[in-house]
Amino acid sequence: MSGERLIYLPLGGAGEIGMNCYVYGYGKPGKERLIVVDLGVTFPDMDSTPGVDLIFADIAWLAENRDRIEAVFITHAHEDHVGAVGHLFSRIGAEIHARRFTAAIARMKLEDAGIGPEHVHTAEPWPAQVEAGPFKVGFAPISHSIPESSALIIDSPAGRIVHTGDFKTDETPLVGEPFDRDFWRGIGDGGVQALVCDSTNVFSPKPGRSEASLGPAIEALVAAAPHRVVATTFASNVARVKTLAEAGHRAGRSICLMGRAMRRMIEAALDTGVLTDFPKTISPEEAEAIPREHVMLLVTGSQGERRAASAALSRGKYLGIELGEGDLFLFSSKTIPGNERSVGRIMNNFSEMGVDVVDDDDGAYHVSGHANRPDLREMHELVRPAMVVPMHGEHRHLRAHVALAEEGGRPAALAPNGTMLDLGGNAPKVAGHVEAGRTYLDGAVQIGAMDGVVRDRIRLALNGHVLVTLIVEEGGEALGDPWCDTKGLPETGRSRAPLVDVLEEDLSQFVNRAGRRTLQDDDRLEGELTKIVRKTALDEIGRKPEVTVVISRLS
Amino acid sequence: MSGERLIYLPLGGAGEIGMNCYVYGYGKPGKERLIVVDLGVTFPDMDSTPGVDLIFADIAWLAENRDRIEAVFITHAHEDHVGAVGHLFSRIGAEIHARRFTAAIARMKLEDAGIGPEHVHTAEPWPAQVEAGPFKVGFAPISHSIPESSALIIDSPAGRIVHTGDFKTDETPLVGEPFDRDFWRGIGDGGVQALVCDSTNVFSPKPGRSEASLGPAIEALVAAAPHRVVATTFASNVARVKTLAEAGHRAGRSICLMGRAMRRMIEAALDTGVLTDFPKTISPEEAEAIPREHVMLLVTGSQGERRAASAALSRGKYLGIELGEGDLFLFSSKTIPGNERSVGRIMNNFSEMGVDVVDDDDGAYHVSGHANRPDLREMHELVRPAMVVPMHGEHRHLRAHVALAEEGGRPAALAPNGTMLDLGGNAPKVAGHVEAGRTYLDGAVQIGAMDGVVRDRIRLALNGHVLVTLIVEEGGEALGDPWCDTKGLPETGRSRAPLVDVLEEDLSQFVNRAGRRTLQDDDRLEGELTKIVRKTALDEIGRKPEVTVVISRLS
Repeated sequence: MSGERLIYLPLGGAGEIGMNCYVYGYGKPGKERLIVVDLGVTFPDMDSTPGVDLIFADIAWLAENRDRIEAVFITHAHEDHVGAVGHLFSRIGAEIHARRFTAAIARMKLEDAGIGPEHVHTAEPWPAQVEAGPFKVGFAPISHSIPESSALIIDSPAGRIVHTGDFKTDETPLVGEPFDRDFWRGIGDGGVQALVCDSTNVFSPKPGRSEASLGPAIEALVAAAPHRVVATTFASNVARVKTLAEAGHRAGRSICLMGRAMRRMIEAALDTGVLTDFPKTISPEEAEAIPREHVMLLVTGSQGERRAASAALSRGKYLGIELGEGDLFLFSSKTIPGNERSVGRIMNNFSEMGVDVVDDDDGAYHVSGHANRPDLREMHELVRPAMVVPMHGEHRHLRAHVALAEEGGRPAALAPNGTMLDLGGNAPKVAGHVEAGRTYLDGAVQIGAMDGVVRDRIRLALNGHVLVTLIVEEGGEALGDPWCDTKGLPETGRSRAPLVDVLEEDLSQFVNRAGRRTLQDDDRLEGELTKIVRKTALDEIGRKPEVTVVISRLS
Repeated sequence: MSGERLIYLPLGGAGEIGMNCYVYGYGKPGKERLIVVDLGVTFPDMDSTPGVDLIFADIAWLAENRDRIEAVFITHAHEDHVGAVGHLFSRIGAEIHARRFTAAIARMKLEDAGIGPEHVHTAEPWPAQVEAGPFKVGFAPISHSIPESSALIIDSPAGRIVHTGDFKTDETPLVGEPFDRDFWRGIGDGGVQALVCDSTNVFSPKPGRSEASLGPAIEALVAAAPHRVVATTFASNVARVKTLAEAGHRAGRSICLMGRAMRRMIEAALDTGVLTDFPKTISPEEAEAIPREHVMLLVTGSQGERRAASAALSRGKYLGIELGEGDLFLFSSKTIPGNERSVGRIMNNFSEMGVDVVDDDDGAYHVSGHANRPDLREMHELVRPAMVVPMHGEHRHLRAHVALAEEGGRPAALAPNGTMLDLGGNAPKVAGHVEAGRTYLDGAVQIGAMDGVVRDRIRLALNGHVLVTLIVEEGGEALGDPWCDTKGLPETGRSRAPLVDVLEEDLSQFVNRAGRRTLQDDDRLEGELTKIVRKTALDEIGRKPEVTVVISRLS
């Protein structure tokens, strides 16, 4: 094949569950023509990314090589796969391909970012294929929890890749196409070079359960509830929203959707025709007007998000609706690690209102959208690839998935973000490394995770802040005393005197004794004043704050 | 009884799992003589308490009534029950009573705070009683996960209270006394007015499992491990440390304890004679020197704490020990909600080192130290109190526990922190409310949760900070231009010019146009400059930062 090669390069999603972004390339080394699979986001948290609005993969490498990018393919419309298209499109500059429903969501994202929706092209499902340079890419329906979720079948001159996207092996997923064992066996019969495979649930030892298994339990719960019923799940889990709505409808209740993301997602699913038989919904005003035992609200905020409908309802009246004694609130969801405190806060608020909270402790009201360990093994066996490349997982998931593939006798590679693999030959081979990282959407600005902006915020939060101002006259004499202002620090410490007074006293003593040489040397003066503030604060309040020194020189 | 009453007042622990602090009183209203049960801590998190070191109950009410306090009783030596004794002793001023092992830990806490250990008195277990004003208090052994854990049997002129402390119904707890059904039935025979009862596991539907059930599985795991084995659990879970050490010992390994808290806890348990047959331990140096398949390390940091041994080992070499390919790391613990991200980070670090991480997903390597729902029901039935008062739980736990008691035909009350109950009569009655809250240990200073210090830190972290300085001459003219300094903000925004330049430009324009009236009015000037910074920042970077304005007036 005269030095051409087939490469795989994850830029996001291989090292975390979120912000998926994978690159495939074919061609001479360094000149491969590229396609991008998914442009997703992940969500910030107070621990590591305070103040940040959204996180996506650092695509600097793609931006540098944008003339080599043939196209972008989006597997499905979950935020961790499509959420960044609007934010990153202009740096990638290649057209976007997705199936009808996903394309509708992607177009909304582009329009939100002021970009023309015509850059998104609707693809037909397999056996249709989209040509993209050396690649032919087909969208193969696969079961997940959102309409038209697809694996990608990527044909290249060096063989076929199956990129699973998110999937489970559900023959009755309610929304989206059923998992079709014969189809995947057939793909396997045709020969597959590499299976690039979802790893999310590699630690779940039992076979996954079908979405269809939930309906009866939820219906029974709703039917037995004496008053209002409210249920929350991910807005983008269209399958679950449908399961909940149908269970409520069968239990004789009118359905009301609350929260923009949920209404938008369901409207898009109805508009594109991928969601049918969805019960008629009523508005919050109508829901408030009818007896509460006839209502079921489906609301956003299953992860405890502060601004979503669940949190708003837990704080009091929201859109005219106020929950109370005897109402039932169902979390039909799994709490994502890290969100337990926010979810717990909402549960306790509801408890204070007298609302009965039911969650998924025993699995009766939630099933995962991802393939469990035995399901992954089955997928390997159906597709029978020459090699397996685990993706969509933290490092430990990828590692366990590599071991699972190897147990099955298939070579596999642990390739975290930034690891370029050569997928030719009999086993994946590391072909190089590129800089991979995270980009933060921070207000209106995209900043790099390593820029230090967020690090400074974390330091302010952990240490508090002291500001010192000093005016120095033209001749090099201090004009008046140094002045301090604190933020996020106790007002008094060990000496019981105001902290600001103690700091100013110590700073004044230093300034009064300091020679002209020191006072004329900005760096040295700043360094000395900072040192004094930190030492005095440590003595007084037992911590070293962040310090900013502003020296104004009159001239 | 001529207007005397028996009261219960939780100040901490009834509304959270942590910072336990309960008050009982007997006497004329407002003049009750008081005893305090437990003085515990809870731990800060970045979401709500960045920079804080430790959290305990706000005991302002106790401090105001310190002349009424007869004594303090500590049920057991877990941090959420004993952790605050050193920090709060001087404001309470009453002597502390605890059983031998708990007393040893409490004395260490007092000494850490520079307070004489003689204020802690060693109590003998039931049937011994400590007299404290109108109360007689006995320490009744009950199974938990630490030596000498005790329920309190509190006799008052208005009847007997059983305060369970933390407990489970374990007949083979390995450490501490077995749960004794006959004993508790006997107590019930004697008549109990109120059962004040642990609620932690009210949502766990199955009977709890015994500590003794873990040994064989852990031993098998250790025996099968080819290389080094490291296990972590709460240092204060002495039962588990013993289970792990014995399993390792039986599997032919030498045991090494790492982490100050764990060494200190085990030493105290050995010194006080409550822990016997603990395998001989070796030092980290010795552990490094012998073949790694002969070593088992027991380490602190099961909750992902940054400074503990687990986190240190996950970052690289620690005390000469470096984990690697083929080593096994066992989390013999439950991750407390809110700690999932930190624990996940450690697991992924180990994954990158090639260490196999095993956790408690399926319950094989961890059991809870608290009574599950059926166990709570059993306790109600053994003790047969006139009323039940759930404690040690979040609001939702207390609420569910009240419902459980009522299902059993017993009156119960939901009394969150600050709710004073009258425990006389046939059912608990709300007798009043006192201010309850949290105190933060922040460096060397105790601050109130509502003081605004932490709120300011959170705002700095979420919004970043702009500092503006302006010098105004005696005559009321600005001297030079306003000067800006930013922290935690992007350097450039929409205009691509440095943010600081854009801010200074807008501020200068304002100052140049401002009349003398404005320039001479500090409040107005500060308000206007702040407004400009926030508006310009919103335009440029899409967020409104915190602003500090310093106006220096020359005179």
